[in-house]
This record gives sequence, structure tokens and C-alpha cells, in this order.
Amino acid sequence: MDLSKYLAGARLDPKTGALYLQISELISGKILNNALPAGTKLPPERELASLFGVSRTTAINAYRHLEQQGMVKTRVGSGTYVAEIFPGTPGQSPGIPWPQLFTPYAQTSFTSTLRELVSNPISSNNISLATGMPDPAFYPVDQLQSLLNDFLHRTDRADFGYIPTEGYTPLRQSLVPYLTKKGINASLENLTVLSGAQQGLYLICKILLSPGDFVVVESPTYLGAIQLFQAAGARLLTLPVSGTFPLSLLEDYLIRYRPKLLYTIPTFHNPTGRLLPENQRKELLQLASRHRMVVLEDDPYSELFYGEPSPPSLKALDPNGGVIYLGTFSKILLPGLRTGFLVAHPSLVNRLAIEKQYNDLHSNNLSQWLVHLLLEEGLLDNHLKFVRREYKKRRDALARAIRRYCGEHLQFDLPEGGFYIWCKLNADVPSSKLLHESIKAGVSFVPGEAFHATPTEGREFRLCFATHPEALLTEGVRRLSKSLDQLSKNGRNRTTPTASYRPII
Amino acid sequence: MDLSKYLAGARLDPKTGALYLQISELISGKILNNALPAGTKLPPERELASLFGVSRTTAINAYRHLEQQGMVKTRVGSGTYVAEIFPGTPGQSPGIPWPQLFTPYAQTSFTSTLRELVSNPISSNNISLATGMPDPAFYPVDQLQSLLNDFLHRTDRADFGYIPTEGYTPLRQSLVPYLTKKGINASLENLTVLSGAQQGLYLICKILLSPGDFVVVESPTYLGAIQLFQAAGARLLTLPVSGTFPLSLLEDYLIRYRPKLLYTIPTFHNPTGRLLPENQRKELLQLASRHRMVVLEDDPYSELFYGEPSPPSLKALDPNGGVIYLGTFSKILLPGLRTGFLVAHPSLVNRLAIEKQYNDLHSNNLSQWLVHLLLEEGLLDNHLKFVRREYKKRRDALARAIRRYCGEHLQFDLPEGGFYIWCKLNADVPSSKLLHESIKAGVSFVPGEAFHATPTEGREFRLCFATHPEALLTEGVRRLSKSLDQLSKNGRNRTTPTASYRPII
Repeated sequence: MDLSKYLAGARLDPKTGALYLQISELISGKILNNALPAGTKLPPERELASLFGVSRTTAINAYRHLEQQGMVKTRVGSGTYVAEIFPGTPGQSPGIPWPQLFTPYAQTSFTSTLRELVSNPISSNNISLATGMPDPAFYPVDQLQSLLNDFLHRTDRADFGYIPTEGYTPLRQSLVPYLTKKGINASLENLTVLSGAQQGLYLICKILLSPGDFVVVESPTYLGAIQLFQAAGARLLTLPVSGTFPLSLLEDYLIRYRPKLLYTIPTFHNPTGRLLPENQRKELLQLASRHRMVVLEDDPYSELFYGEPSPPSLKALDPNGGVIYLGTFSKILLPGLRTGFLVAHPSLVNRLAIEKQYNDLHSNNLSQWLVHLLLEEGLLDNHLKFVRREYKKRRDALARAIRRYCGEHLQFDLPEGGFYIWCKLNADVPSSKLLHESIKAGVSFVPGEAFHATPTEGREFRLCFATHPEALLTEGVRRLSKSLDQLSKNGRNRTTPTASYRPII
Repeated sequence: MDLSKYLAGARLDPKTGALYLQISELISGKILNNALPAGTKLPPERELASLFGVSRTTAINAYRHLEQQGMVKTRVGSGTYVAEIFPGTPGQSPGIPWPQLFTPYAQTSFTSTLRELVSNPISSNNISLATGMPDPAFYPVDQLQSLLNDFLHRTDRADFGYIPTEGYTPLRQSLVPYLTKKGINASLENLTVLSGAQQGLYLICKILLSPGDFVVVESPTYLGAIQLFQAAGARLLTLPVSGTFPLSLLEDYLIRYRPKLLYTIPTFHNPTGRLLPENQRKELLQLASRHRMVVLEDDPYSELFYGEPSPPSLKALDPNGGVIYLGTFSKILLPGLRTGFLVAHPSLVNRLAIEKQYNDLHSNNLSQWLVHLLLEEGLLDNHLKFVRREYKKRRDALARAIRRYCGEHLQFDLPEGGFYIWCKLNADVPSSKLLHESIKAGVSFVPGEAFHATPTEGREFRLCFATHPEALLTEGVRRLSKSLDQLSKNGRNRTTPTASYRPII
């Protein structure tokens, strides 16, 4: 067919993109507006090439692209034809090419694994020491129920309608004295409620990070934060979490890269359990202040101390409002509330509220109302005393079991709070290998590589002692020890080093 | 001072950005690593220019940029000095330059107004016909309380822990028959729960829109959607909402711009109340199918019909899964649940779940558990019968009051469902002018311009009849009629046309 008459006046411009795409666009435009109906035979590639004055390869690519889009069909030995893309009868349409429409997304490590960890209910066969899930048996369901019965009818029903984006005002008001007790001086203008601390991380990425920005993270650190920073296109600079806080490395980063922010979990760090001492907190803040660096302090665990109360948060010690503080009730009450909060400079709170309004208008009021009542009625303090006592017993039981059953295979430091014991294999074996064995034996955990921004096959792994009672923790470690024995037997037959990186061809 | 020794080896590269920024970066690096301490006098602009071989303007701009960053101070008649940016004593630090750190955000029309509408509680003095707020008196608080008392102790407590991102599985299961009754054929793989339909809009923008993409919207339409599309950098193509659906204009858009999606509220449209007839729905879907266009159907109001049941949704008529359907319980139960859902092709549901996991891990479980129970116990149907009856009375009361008190000033069509009556002033006066008067008289509404993507000073405005009982609606309209009288008196003195656009100089 004479395509030239349909493309009269069409010009290719090498500056505006690949030529084959421009040709393919021109033809698909004619197909979509029905100038070239289904079944029309298109010129051979050679002819198409001369029509546009391009190479034959370009012409071939143009047709190939049209074929991938479902616009044309190639019949071997016959030629290229306009495809039946206007089927008329619904149901036969090729439908929306969904994967072509999605925005590119940064493939981040371990995405599917975290989703499975979060999603999979703990089966009775497998003892999961993986997810950072507080024990459902400790959820203060009775207190919530009696609060509902006592207060629901006395509450203004308008409180369950649309409310301010920054949060249910009574909750924000009761967060002020709660924070004061933690040494954080906040007022309503510094405070916004969030749909979980995760939303805070997400919105902070949205309002502070542009692709290419540098962000300093501890390594290892919370997987969800790594994923968010990577998805925002940030470049990650890592600070090792071991021994004292690496201030001079951080200062190097500050001078060389001027990073947008430092993300840190100073108190009962996830996954290592590390507690940053008060003097090092002060030194970190002085450095941050000198370089006017934003510090994002994630603090889900500080209320869960099993010895001395935690030192003051970075936010409590923060002299100039450079710290953004993220708090949550997920670990200390129950995750299903999806209620967290953020304390920061008012200009950040304002900017974040605009983004949050776009995101979800406001967080759910039932949970905010319940958390407010728990705080007002002083029930949280009692609940915290209870869970601290119970989790301490579990930490000790897990530590005891590790020493007893896995003492020759593993090293760990006893954490002073939080949910996790961070173990290291004595043998030079990646912990992911242990996981493969241990799942067969009926116990799971998170291998250390999940918490690193850069690929690593470390010997570390994380055990959570919060979810299960002591007997189950002990049984889990007993199963783990069997896998360790199995692994060291296999290890003797090992011929290749495990930490090598092989090109995937 | 001899800056040259500090900048030995420094080279400017015109390809990597503006020269003044490169100079400013070099100098600020030296300031931050203390090579140039506070108080150091920097070379005059002329000298700086010759040092780097740039024009004097470039040198001036470099210093100006450093000054804006707080790195240097200029003393008139004396020169440029390194500023005191390392104050040493905390508390005196200049602090974080927050506004400099934020990512640019698209200034969208009416942002602050919507926030105020959503945020401000309805005072007893002002009758707000503005917000689309269901009447708190109708919230099924008693039912929720008895569900809590009946089921809380029988529920697995793990249901209040971390759950799958796509939603509480029992709720997703009970949404399937709920959707079947609405003619929508869905299974779990098509379905995800959302933290309100707003989150669905937000996440869809995130996964489908790149800056510069075209999006077709009705004009007027839901303000929150306009803002999201604008913030995503989309270019909006508008379809007027009046008379029949403008299919040929849409087809023009499809051929000329290949838009990413069409956003539409076909049933009891916000703000106009328009109901798209079934035959036009089918024609729209045929066009969409031919062009493989994604249709985003926002459907908060279809259960709130006051005559015949609503026609099938676009999703119910959708032959090839090209429609993304957004539902919510905010208008029919209570906004504070923050529970919506989305029905779409599985590949979209999967991609969206990844983004949602980043955003908030999952939506709050208390609400999901309650909505599930309401559906399972068949309480929703009864509640819907009740609110339809009540809202119908209110729609009729508002319409009666408008005819009685404002008949000579206003036109409107009686909507067959939803929350809104869309009024048009007979006089050529922008409705925002009426709002200024009416707020003084003690009644508020949303002027039509809030619902348009392009600046407009229309004569239309939206009244919500859902929030208040009939007597208050009537009183609101009585107050409105006073403002109308006032306005027409003022109008006689008007000398300039109101619809002109004046340059702001």
C-alpha cells in the first residue's frame, strides 16, 4: 500500500528521540484514527526505510515496536499487516497493556521477602522469629473494649467525621505531656499524627528527597527505610553499626557529599539492638548542628527497656530543631492501630501536612480516639510496665537457649531493650544458607543481608523474641541448632567459597 | 585573602551546571571543612572573577548564592566575609534551612481552602453547606459498639497485628459478594483495601503518571483529584460536564494526546450531581476499549440514590478490565473509618500493593474488621435504606428552600442521588463574591471555581444537603437569599466587569 500519502508532511527529528519510535508513533496514530484500518498491508521494511530515509534496521525496529504494542501483525513470508485492535465486540479486545503504563520503579532488594514476612500468618508448624510482631496475646483488647463502652456515647460523633490532616486534636493535645515525660518539648505546631511511622518515612522521602540526593543510613538498618530511600532515587552512604558511632566517617560524608539527611534508630536499633550512649548522642548532634544536617530519628522501641530507662532521644537533646522524630504505637500497643506521630520543626510539619492531605486526607479517627483515651486514662503506663516485664523474660529465655543449644556456633550481645537479638555465625557461612536449612527444621528468621543497602552475604541474622512465649522461643532455638549442625556437616563438603559474586550471564 | 591556594586544582566544567553554582559549591566546601573560618575576608568580586576566569556577574552571583545559604555576609563598603555558621554553643545555631530543603511542589489551586473546609468544625453560628460530610447523627455508632461487644473476644487477636498490604482477608472476602450485588465481578486478586479512596488516587498517580503525561478530567470535578494530578506534573485535558458526555471531544483528545487515563465520577457526580445514563456509559467504554484507555472510576455516591437504583457502574459494564474502580465507606458509613477499596486488573493491584506497602504497610485493621462485620451481619443494607430515606428528605428540603427563597436568583437541576445541589447564579457575578457575603450572613458553600483545573470565575457553586437536618438547610438558604439580595444591590453599583483577568505586576 502507498503509506506515503498518509504520512505527507511527516518529518522525523533526530533530536526528539529514536527514529524507529517516531516512525512507529506516526503509523500508530494513523491506525488509531482509523486511516489505516485493520488488515491493511504495510509496505515491506525496505520500502519503509526508503520512505523515511532511514536504515533498514530502523524500519525493522519500528515494525517490531508496533508489533509489541499489538498494533501490527507480521505473517511470515507475507508481510506486515495492521492488527485487529478495534474488535467491536467487547471481550475480544487486547485490553490495556498495563505493564507498559506503569512508571519505572526502583527494584529494591528483598521487596518480596518483606512482603511475605509481613503477610504470612505464623503457622503452628513453623516458629517465626522473623517478623517484628508484638505478641497478639499482649494486645490490650480488654482495655480498648472498656474504653469503647465507657466513652463512645459521651464522644461527639463529629469526631468520627473528617478531621484535620495533622490529627485528632485531643490526641495531639495528649501527646504533648506524653512527649514531655520523654524529655521532648513539643507543642501542637510541632506535631502531626501519622498512619503509622511508615507513612512518616514515606512522606519525608516525598518532601525532602530528589533523585540523586545523598542519604546517610546505618548499615544494617530497617529494611523498609532502605527501600523507600532507594525508591526515591537517593544514593545511600552507609555507617557501620558496631562499636562507637563512626563520627569521623559521618563528617567525611558531610563534607564530601552534603547529604540531605541521616536516618538513624539510636535506641534498641533494628536489627542489631544497639543502644547509642548519651555522650555519643550529644556528639552526633553537635556534628549535625555544625553541618546543618537533618537527622531523622526513628524510635519505635525506646519504651521497651529491660534494665535502666533509655537515655534521652536525639530529639530530646536536639538544640536547634534539626531532628525529625518518628514515634509509633505499633510495637507498644498493637500494629493494627496504624497510629504513629512525628515531631519536627513547624515548617516541616506544615509541608508534610499538605502531602499527607493528598495521601489520605487524615489518619483513621477510631484509632486516634482510642490512643487518646489510653493516654488520658493513664492505661498506657500500666501496659508498658506489663510488656517490659514479659518481653524481658523472653529476651532472657532466648539468650539462654542460644547459649545452651547454639553456643558453639553463634555469638551475640544481649540487647538492653527492643525486640531483637542479632546473632553472628562463627563459621564463614552466609546466614541465608542457614535460613534454607532452618525453614525445613521449622523455624525462620531474617538473614542479615535484608538489612543492608548494598548486596552482602553476611554471617549475621536477626531473631525476634517478642512474638512467642518462652517455651516456643526455646523450641525455636533447639530447631535452629539442628540446622546449624546440619550446616556444619554440609560445610565440610563445601568446595567453593560462598561470598563470591558471579556474573549472571 | 589569597583564596587561590585553597582552590588549587579546582576546575570549573561548564557542562555540569551554572558556573556561579560551581564556584559557590567550591567555596562552601572550604567553609564547611573549616579551611575558611568564620570572619575570613573573601576576595573582591573582580578578583574572584579573574581567579576563575569568569565574568564579574558570575562572581557576584556566586557570592549572592553563598549569602542566601547563610555561608557568607556582605558588609557594604567593606567586602564579603565568611559567616558564623559554626556557632559552637548549641541554641545559637542558625538551624536547618528547611524551606531550602523541600522538594519543589506544584502550587495547586485552592489547597488551603480545601484544608480549611476539611479541618474546620462546623460552628453553631455558621451553617456549612460546604464540606461533603455525612451527618454525624447518622453514623452507625450503636451498631459498631454492639459488633465490638459481640465479636471482639471471639476474634483472633493476630487479626490486629501486621496483616497483608492488600487488606484484611475476611474483609476482601466479604467485599466479593458486596461487589457482585453491584454487578462487579471481582475476586481477591482484583481487590485491594485502601486507607480511604483518597489513598487510591494518590497511589495511582504515583504508579501511572510521569510529569508531562496527559490526564482527562471532567470539568468541574473533585478538587482533591485535580490537586493530585497537578502535583504529579500531569497536563489536564478537560471535558465539560453538561448535557451528554462529550464523546467526540474525548476521542479528539485520545488521538491527539494519547492521555494516560480518564478520571470520572459517573454516578451522582461531585460537584454537579450529574448521573451518566447507561447508554452513554457503554459508548464511553467502547471508545475507551478501542483506544485502550485506562478509566479511573471514582464512585463514592452510587449507593445514595433517592429514586431508581443507580445504573451499573462503568466497572460493572467494563468488558476488558480497563476500568479502575474506587469505592469507599466514608460517605455511606462514616469518614473516620478511612476505609476504601479498589477493583482493577491484577497487574495493577500488584504494582499498587508494592507502593502501598511503602506508603503505610497496610490500612488500619480495626476499621477493616468493623466494615467486614457490618457486611457479614447484613447491617449495611439496613443502614443504607435508612440514610437514603433521610438524605432524600434533605435533598427535597434544600431544593424547596432554594425555589422558595432564591428562585429568582438561582437555577439548579434536582440530583437523583449523592450529596450535592449544583446551583448557578442568574446574575453575571462570580459565586466567590456571593461566598464573601454569605459568610457574613452565616452560611458557607464551595464556589464552583474550586472544582476546575483551570482558573475560572464561574457563577456556579455547590451546596451539600447531607450534613444538616431539614430546618437548618432551610435556614441556611434563607441566609443565602439575604446575601443574594445584598449582592444584587451591590451589583447595581458595579462599574467593572468581574470576569476580567488583570496582570499582577
